[in-house]
Amino acid sequence: MNLMLDYTNLLKSKNLPKGISLCELENGKALVKQAFDLFKLKKNNEPLGFYDLPDYDTKIIKNFINKNSQRKKPFNTIVVLGIGGSALGNKAVYNALRHQKNLNKLYVYDNVDPYLWQDILDNINIETTLFNVITKSGTTAETMSSFMFIMNFIKEKFPQDYKERIVITTDKEKGFLRQIVQKEGFESFIVPDDVGGRFSVLTDVGLLSSAFVGIDIDALLKGAKKMRKLCDENDIFKNPAMIIALTHLRYMNQGKNISVMMPYSNALYDLADWYRQLWAESLGKKVDLEGKEVFTGQTPIKALGATDQHSQVQLYVEGPKDKVFTFLMVENYKIDFTIPNIYPERAEVNYLSNSTFSKLLNSECIATELALTEANCPNMTIKFKTLNEESIGAFIYLYEAATIFTGYMLNINPLNQPGVEAGKIATYALMNKKGFEETSQKINNYIKNKEKQGNILCLN
Amino acid sequence: MNLMLDYTNLLKSKNLPKGISLCELENGKALVKQAFDLFKLKKNNEPLGFYDLPDYDTKIIKNFINKNSQRKKPFNTIVVLGIGGSALGNKAVYNALRHQKNLNKLYVYDNVDPYLWQDILDNINIETTLFNVITKSGTTAETMSSFMFIMNFIKEKFPQDYKERIVITTDKEKGFLRQIVQKEGFESFIVPDDVGGRFSVLTDVGLLSSAFVGIDIDALLKGAKKMRKLCDENDIFKNPAMIIALTHLRYMNQGKNISVMMPYSNALYDLADWYRQLWAESLGKKVDLEGKEVFTGQTPIKALGATDQHSQVQLYVEGPKDKVFTFLMVENYKIDFTIPNIYPERAEVNYLSNSTFSKLLNSECIATELALTEANCPNMTIKFKTLNEESIGAFIYLYEAATIFTGYMLNINPLNQPGVEAGKIATYALMNKKGFEETSQKINNYIKNKEKQGNILCLN
Repeated sequence: MNLMLDYTNLLKSKNLPKGISLCELENGKALVKQAFDLFKLKKNNEPLGFYDLPDYDTKIIKNFINKNSQRKKPFNTIVVLGIGGSALGNKAVYNALRHQKNLNKLYVYDNVDPYLWQDILDNINIETTLFNVITKSGTTAETMSSFMFIMNFIKEKFPQDYKERIVITTDKEKGFLRQIVQKEGFESFIVPDDVGGRFSVLTDVGLLSSAFVGIDIDALLKGAKKMRKLCDENDIFKNPAMIIALTHLRYMNQGKNISVMMPYSNALYDLADWYRQLWAESLGKKVDLEGKEVFTGQTPIKALGATDQHSQVQLYVEGPKDKVFTFLMVENYKIDFTIPNIYPERAEVNYLSNSTFSKLLNSECIATELALTEANCPNMTIKFKTLNEESIGAFIYLYEAATIFTGYMLNINPLNQPGVEAGKIATYALMNKKGFEETSQKINNYIKNKEKQGNILCLN
Repeated sequence: MNLMLDYTNLLKSKNLPKGISLCELENGKALVKQAFDLFKLKKNNEPLGFYDLPDYDTKIIKNFINKNSQRKKPFNTIVVLGIGGSALGNKAVYNALRHQKNLNKLYVYDNVDPYLWQDILDNINIETTLFNVITKSGTTAETMSSFMFIMNFIKEKFPQDYKERIVITTDKEKGFLRQIVQKEGFESFIVPDDVGGRFSVLTDVGLLSSAFVGIDIDALLKGAKKMRKLCDENDIFKNPAMIIALTHLRYMNQGKNISVMMPYSNALYDLADWYRQLWAESLGKKVDLEGKEVFTGQTPIKALGATDQHSQVQLYVEGPKDKVFTFLMVENYKIDFTIPNIYPERAEVNYLSNSTFSKLLNSECIATELALTEANCPNMTIKFKTLNEESIGAFIYLYEAATIFTGYMLNINPLNQPGVEAGKIATYALMNKKGFEETSQKINNYIKNKEKQGNILCLN
């Protein structure tokens, strides 16, 4: 048993009088069943293709990776140029697994901050670095500006073989980037039509960089496949995605508008960041499926144990009862250190001695679980026996399914993101893209008006 | 003008019908004045000493740093062993400024995760690394276990001069770590009595590592001093801390239980993490000053622009109206890159060409500000003309003052953190510390009961 879900502290008890009862969970089945049928019904349509990803054939990716090892100077570093769903999964999988075996290096340029470019360029050996540009549309402003920058940079430095140094993951036929692939002859991979960005880590989007660094992507998919079976279970007590969905829905209805995911593991912190996109973009919706305004959603937060005990736990324990918590915990560490017994006579510290750091870390996780439970804060724990590909793949699928279930139970569309359009248009206008002159004018007026109003304070 | 606060979008307008009016802000003065007097009254008592920190004499720190430069092989890396208030400020100041000039390296070990140790040990040259252990009490489990580990490690490697390789920042006379200083003869610095951990970045806690890497700590303090003057202003329209406090209080009363700080700058992301502790621990309180149960607080969130536009903005725009936003923005970048004009004929991308990355980043910030404002989401922007010591020092003081004001207006004690005790005791019990046998027994029963109840699902 390498992965466990403990949902005891989501249930009604003396400490949690407003918790859900087992009976209610059982009775919730009707709601779940309805959502489940909707899910099953739609699963063959776009864009619910993530359901089929565990069966994905990884041969093409593996061939590409093998070709690299035959280079005179094989690449040993990959830089992903992507943002959101084309970056968060890549980072999460890499950081979860990079201490388990000797991997190639991954960097992700997922912003348009020049200092981040500087950091990456300072850290890589450009000679042995492969760049992977990922954008489905081929028009994402952040990714395309980075692509043009690195394309120019690489072409100047390596005019002979620059085409081998960039690999592109984009739509299979549409979009500007696909045209560039065809024109320039870059190697390319596909962002499938029926899988949304935030659900795409188990496609070429996440699998290529994972395979490149040395992660066993078939084992990732195997874990997802096993989890798919569980998430297909009709019996709610065997179906972890249903349990997560139903309990979280129930707590949302109680006004708990915040979901904290708190790994007690630096390696899993980026997995919480991946969850953050999945949960926020899927459930944060203005209208329901009938078009009624609902302004629904639950704000996901990533916290880090034990670190945030010294930053957030005061608020969690004593502040508003507006949160539901998920702890992630790793039982066995491949690398560990023992705390030496150098002050055996001193009670202030000798209880720590001869323990390992991981034992202390996990004790703090249980301690916080207990403290929150006693403070009437519902929580659950997902425990990894060890970090490996299978358990990470299973975790990914679990949360994708749980998110879809929750979305359908909320009666909203968990697969779109109409709310980001306004910001994109305003960016086009500010960058003087042709066709956005009117918006440009509007924004200039907005900025001038603000200055005129004078609610801007000079501080230094 | 190197630092500006634009609070236009916190005010009532067509887009923000529930915003605060200028008149209300003006009338809020009474409440503010009351809080302000309480603050002034208490300022000479513990632990509000942060008020006096801008006048701090940095001579001793600078002498210590000078001594280092006279070593045969000067240290060029510092590793801070601390957690919470003994880590977050150190990281925030370093990362905000490290691209501005050539600094020594800082690493912070602020967890008890063996993989984090492995990462730090892989990155440093132990020969030229100074370790700075920071804990006021000298009993913090995380920091003391790390101290014992590194003490043992260093002593074995450098039996001759290990004492020069560790510098300790702790209580001036009390606690186990102070005793070790006296016994072993380490160099030491002081965590003052009258400054709480989360307010301590401008004491030896944050200043020593900052000075070590090459940050001008006098300029940090100078910025704080200028800001103190503004935060002492009786006129609310000149007092940025009052504006932040009053507007946030007002939005909390409207049920906005989340405060998002979203720097459009990777360099300032850790400053948002520092704010996260300050706001959460100070305002998240179960009882008010009269002991009445209030369960107050506002959950701070760190988000990163432009990255989180592809993760969180969908939720921000379309989800529940439960948030108030603060953008941080940097006008001028010391290092920048131009996006090349390699596809001049293609409208999909040519609008990006010849722009810099920083221009794109800042355009996205304004675009998001606009999109949120139009979606009825109150927001403010703090703009740094450039990142430098003075503006960072000013920012730090501003938020410390704003937090205190908000706390007093909430009629709670913003300076304590009673809610973390339960977790500490549970950790002692789980680690078998003497005197906690009864709690140990209780926890063992709790764990056994959970197993018996069987709400634990095996997933993989």
